[in-house]
Amino acid sequence: MNIEQRIQSAMERYFRDLVSPSTPPTLRGAMEHALFPGGARIRPQLYMAVAMVSGDDSPELTDAGAVALELMHSASLVHDDMPCFDNAQTRRGKKSVHAAFSEPVALLTGDALIVMAYQVLLSQSEKMLLSPEQSNRVLKMMSVLSQGVGVPHGIVAGQAWECESKVDLWKYQRSKTGSLFTAAVFMGAIAAGANPEPWREVGESLGDAYQIADDIRDVVGHFSMIGKPVGQDVEHGRPSAAQALGLEGANLEFKRLIENAANGVPYCDGRDLLRAMIYKESERLVPQKEYQKYVKLAKMQSSKAETVV
Amino acid sequence: MNIEQRIQSAMERYFRDLVSPSTPPTLRGAMEHALFPGGARIRPQLYMAVAMVSGDDSPELTDAGAVALELMHSASLVHDDMPCFDNAQTRRGKKSVHAAFSEPVALLTGDALIVMAYQVLLSQSEKMLLSPEQSNRVLKMMSVLSQGVGVPHGIVAGQAWECESKVDLWKYQRSKTGSLFTAAVFMGAIAAGANPEPWREVGESLGDAYQIADDIRDVVGHFSMIGKPVGQDVEHGRPSAAQALGLEGANLEFKRLIENAANGVPYCDGRDLLRAMIYKESERLVPQKEYQKYVKLAKMQSSKAETVV
Repeated sequence: MNIEQRIQSAMERYFRDLVSPSTPPTLRGAMEHALFPGGARIRPQLYMAVAMVSGDDSPELTDAGAVALELMHSASLVHDDMPCFDNAQTRRGKKSVHAAFSEPVALLTGDALIVMAYQVLLSQSEKMLLSPEQSNRVLKMMSVLSQGVGVPHGIVAGQAWECESKVDLWKYQRSKTGSLFTAAVFMGAIAAGANPEPWREVGESLGDAYQIADDIRDVVGHFSMIGKPVGQDVEHGRPSAAQALGLEGANLEFKRLIENAANGVPYCDGRDLLRAMIYKESERLVPQKEYQKYVKLAKMQSSKAETVV
Repeated sequence: MNIEQRIQSAMERYFRDLVSPSTPPTLRGAMEHALFPGGARIRPQLYMAVAMVSGDDSPELTDAGAVALELMHSASLVHDDMPCFDNAQTRRGKKSVHAAFSEPVALLTGDALIVMAYQVLLSQSEKMLLSPEQSNRVLKMMSVLSQGVGVPHGIVAGQAWECESKVDLWKYQRSKTGSLFTAAVFMGAIAAGANPEPWREVGESLGDAYQIADDIRDVVGHFSMIGKPVGQDVEHGRPSAAQALGLEGANLEFKRLIENAANGVPYCDGRDLLRAMIYKESERLVPQKEYQKYVKLAKMQSSKAETVV
């Protein structure tokens, strides 16, 4: 079973176990809609890769952490898509939750997914399957996850920076996206009983890279298969690295951050595999060949426009 | 320090500790608006009374549980008030969060408060102040709290029953309100290292009583100081005990449930005090003298109307 399959299987198992048939059927359907089929599941993949190179000595706990991360991420997407934020009608190539169900249902779906993230991590302690040392891991994983999501620096705080008139771009992006990446690598180490601190550079660099990639794709759009509307940042007047650094500056910064992340992987068995995974992911995020094609085309169009003028 | 003061002081302490000045200022302001000044803080009071008669051997943990409960309750109020649900402009006699700030901020405030509820419970384990046995209490408290809020039977699920065309009134109410009362008494026992099970009757009966009181006040309104608009159930076509049983039937059921709760208090030091607290709270919820006055007046008006016809 590869990492993708392992995550998918864990997602299905926890959904079946925790969202019982006595859940209100519309809410249940909306939660399922938000979770399956998933997106790239990049946060749990990163998390799981770190847990595996760190020993993965409690596979059930590792699975729970992956699901908890994906639930939090999905919750934030459901709420972000709502009319009072992005008003996005589509997500992952299908209708967003509020478009497919309703606004009240989308609001509750996000809330239920946040709580479920904790329920997943708590479920094994409920079954009394944990040693005191493993209980401590669960507590630490929940702390790190909460920091990645809540105040003062988690993704919810990141979103809230959009509601301020003065925003520090890097602070905003570090919170909005980076915080959950940092949480992912930290949780991966903790799940396997390892020290999370050596993984900070990897998490922070990847988080920053991912946010910049998102900004680049918001401008470029063409090569993206992200399944959501492009041009959202400009439309919503949101701070964006592509605007602050220029498109090419943003791409250079993206590549620097990917190098940083890959070089930051601590020396361990599986280091090369994890580095390869990071480079592969970077190609998925911003395929450099297609990016160069776009830049060339854009330059041609702009010089043509100048000639006409 | 009485129970009210102890809760207030804990609320202020955890807000100061966890919602640091580096939180986006609007979000911070909105969270503060949602929490201070509070309502009756009935759930943490009930919780703390149970913890105290159960020995209260870990006062810091007891405080944390009270705050976590109130944060979850407050989060649900913030989201319920939003335009896609009740569209309530006022709450606790002042503007609701979305009316005072904005919809996006209200959405994020609710999310941040949910996560903060867990952060409060986790904060002591982060400071390594807990024995393994106390860590277990924290895990159990979080499990019970999550059940009270999430799927399949927590308050979020209760709200979701409003989005279904077919609803079982008791199932709906048990989830919508009762679940957090049950969580409160269970958590109180667990915080003090006691067995929660003997407290089930108290929690369930009080939860049901509280929901019926809410329904009664939604019809009667006059004597309530609940600080929110009346007539919401009828306006939103929500199932209501006052409609299902008739007003007087609902009041009888309310009184029966209060008796049940009071009689359900397990034999322990402080039993009489806790029973007295339950009766006092019942008078606050539905003051019987004023209720009788209202019924008399309503009857007079209806017979007058008949005479005119």
